[in-house]
Amino acid sequence: MDYYSRQISRLIEELSSLPGIGSKSAQRLAFHILNMPTDHVQKLSSTILEARQKVRYCQSCFTLTDSELCPICSNTDRDHKTIMVVEDTRDLAAYEKTNKYEGVYHVLHGAISPMLGIGPGDIKLKELMQRLQAEVEEVIIATNSSLEGETTAMYISKLIKPTGIKVSRIASGVPVGGDLEYIDEMTLLRALEGRTEL
Amino acid sequence: MDYYSRQISRLIEELSSLPGIGSKSAQRLAFHILNMPTDHVQKLSSTILEARQKVRYCQSCFTLTDSELCPICSNTDRDHKTIMVVEDTRDLAAYEKTNKYEGVYHVLHGAISPMLGIGPGDIKLKELMQRLQAEVEEVIIATNSSLEGETTAMYISKLIKPTGIKVSRIASGVPVGGDLEYIDEMTLLRALEGRTEL
Repeated sequence: MDYYSRQISRLIEELSSLPGIGSKSAQRLAFHILNMPTDHVQKLSSTILEARQKVRYCQSCFTLTDSELCPICSNTDRDHKTIMVVEDTRDLAAYEKTNKYEGVYHVLHGAISPMLGIGPGDIKLKELMQRLQAEVEEVIIATNSSLEGETTAMYISKLIKPTGIKVSRIASGVPVGGDLEYIDEMTLLRALEGRTEL
Repeated sequence: MDYYSRQISRLIEELSSLPGIGSKSAQRLAFHILNMPTDHVQKLSSTILEARQKVRYCQSCFTLTDSELCPICSNTDRDHKTIMVVEDTRDLAAYEKTNKYEGVYHVLHGAISPMLGIGPGDIKLKELMQRLQAEVEEVIIATNSSLEGETTAMYISKLIKPTGIKVSRIASGVPVGGDLEYIDEMTLLRALEGRTEL
């Protein structure tokens, strides 16, 4: 890229190392940044660094937050006896957007994957078990509906069952508005297995 | 976004203000950054700010660069008697990628657009005319093939013609590999008008 000066090439390179940003988008982004007012760029640059420096795990649920306890764990209006287990903070955000879930969460930061060499010790599972020593009524497993997510769900349910605490798994089936014609066979079978009486 | 802590929300907001980054991509980027090693984030953050602070216009062709003259203008092997006029630095980069153009460039930083209120005084046109006082043999106008690009090309050619310097316009037509069936009528007409004898 010697048609760009060194500073510009470095910026394009840095940006294109981010996920989902190819070389074309990186160029567009770079020139947008180079044309932004300097104080905006200063703000962008410091927000990135500050966020990384200040963000840490919530001491209770392990979501990413900037204080000791995240806003959900420190909210006494939430039902702290119901814990939803998710793979990452974005999954937590997805459920929060529904505005209907009143319980708290536990973020595993991954899923068990023998293929990738990720075992039960590599995710926040020990920490989940520790939380169950407090008064907990139900653990809802909301890991993804992938091979790794299902493996993790099975593993967790086996760990928890002996404690007598209720363990549930979110339903798998046809998405709302989904047209059966275009849905894969695995999902159709799951929907059939999970049918409820009307 | 109160399910994310303030720092994370701010980061997502900043990222989604960039062009081509929607709220989903901004979230993905933000969590990628939050999971990056701190020293990588430091490098990303400082590259962004430094690039913006150090990059300025080349004193000759007005492309974005980090020294007084850009690498192309300071290269004595290039043909400084041929100037290709482009709308922005990315267009320059596009032609540089062909590895076939030996001349130099002039970056207008925009195109004349009565709709957007951009007049000849708002782009680097005066600066182009000043360059023509040195020994220049040909000005190749490579503005975009849009209404604004064409207007700008016409305007520049009328300005330059009285000086006796050769003015040319890059060809407009069917892209290489293009299937006629799928090409718009304007392009087909242009290709017909611009036909060359075999």
